[in-house]
Amino acid sequence: MKTVSKTLKIETKKKIELIDITNEVENFVRESNIKNGFCLIFAPHATAAIIANENEKGLINDIIRKIKEEFPQEYNWEHDRIDDNAYAHIASSFIGASKVFPIIDGRLIRGTWQNIFLVELDGPRFIRNVILQIIGE
Amino acid sequence: MKTVSKTLKIETKKKIELIDITNEVENFVRESNIKNGFCLIFAPHATAAIIANENEKGLINDIIRKIKEEFPQEYNWEHDRIDDNAYAHIASSFIGASKVFPIIDGRLIRGTWQNIFLVELDGPRFIRNVILQIIGE
Amino acid sequence: MKTVSKTLKIETKKKIELIDITNEVENFVRESNIKNGFCLIFAPHATAAIIANENEKGLINDIIRKIKEEFPQEYNWEHDRIDDNAYAHIASSFIGASKVFPIIDGRLIRGTWQNIFLVELDGPRFIRNVILQIIGE
Repeated sequence: MKTVSKTLKIETKKKIELIDITNEVENFVRESNIKNGFCLIFAPHATAAIIANENEKGLINDIIRKIKEEFPQEYNWEHDRIDDNAYAHIASSFIGASKVFPIIDGRLIRGTWQNIFLVELDGPRFIRNVILQIIGE
Repeated sequence: MKTVSKTLKIETKKKIELIDITNEVENFVRESNIKNGFCLIFAPHATAAIIANENEKGLINDIIRKIKEEFPQEYNWEHDRIDDNAYAHIASSFIGASKVFPIIDGRLIRGTWQNIFLVELDGPRFIRNVILQIIGE
Repeated sequence: MKTVSKTLKIETKKKIELIDITNEVENFVRESNIKNGFCLIFAPHATAAIIANENEKGLINDIIRKIKEEFPQEYNWEHDRIDDNAYAHIASSFIGASKVFPIIDGRLIRGTWQNIFLVELDGPRFIRNVILQIIGE
């Protein structure tokens, strides 16, 4: 049993954006040589999130639309008195900034349509970190 | 320290439905003989979710009502141009398709009113998988 | 590789309230002497949640406002026929009652603005438990 970790450095280009990191996660699982365990995907940011779903252009637009409608930027949020990104903090709180996936027989287990995305909620940012950590054997 | 995993195969019967899998999870924890560790409950599906809450008929109806109001099926979602289940993908993205529970002294730790449910968001489906994986000692 | 756990006992004072438990979590990580692993923060309650975000007074008010608007107390919920806290159960189901953080080089990894909160959704309560559990080496 061992633990390994890696930090992805990701540049984001839009205010709200989904960035597919599935390949990076799967490569790290392979490199780790861990056959069975948990893979944690964690964004150490209060204005980002991690979700898993299908990488289809229309659906990605739908998710961004839902985020904008659910967490409106103009809403007299109190936090906007000291910053202008309350909606992004609230969205990150509700959606969540991490996910755990199983690793079985050396493979990251996920559904066919379950890609892994960093959700930028207050971009663009020169660097967003995503920490990958695996525990297993 | 070891890891064990098991896949539950579940038939769903309705469009949106909560299926209580608490007994299956607790049985697996017992069979694993792991005394202390983490139990991951993971649905490898982009149109399902995992939640923990009370198994009370009224509350289950309330949760289904909330899902329907929060993620309406008819809403000009872009993903519906190629499929008809955008709402289910979006709900799965926001609610999340996994949960982690502690195992302490051989027992799955959960609140009295915290049962574990697979949430079918786009059923009925002949087989939905729920992967249970435990790491511990 | 080992597992350690601890239960925080927290008194809540309001109906809906965020209680910052970051110090307690970080102290436990230090005491555990585990250098690399996962830290699970788990509320064994169906009317509480765990979130990670900034401890800024305005933002905390915004999050409470969002909870109240998103999960209204008066909404003809069916569960209210047998209890009066359906909104709190539904909020807990959607927000989620646990989070997993990485531990790397003996330190809990989190963003600068990512404090850890117990979210009381149906207080006040004399005791709310938060279970901390670490697996690592």
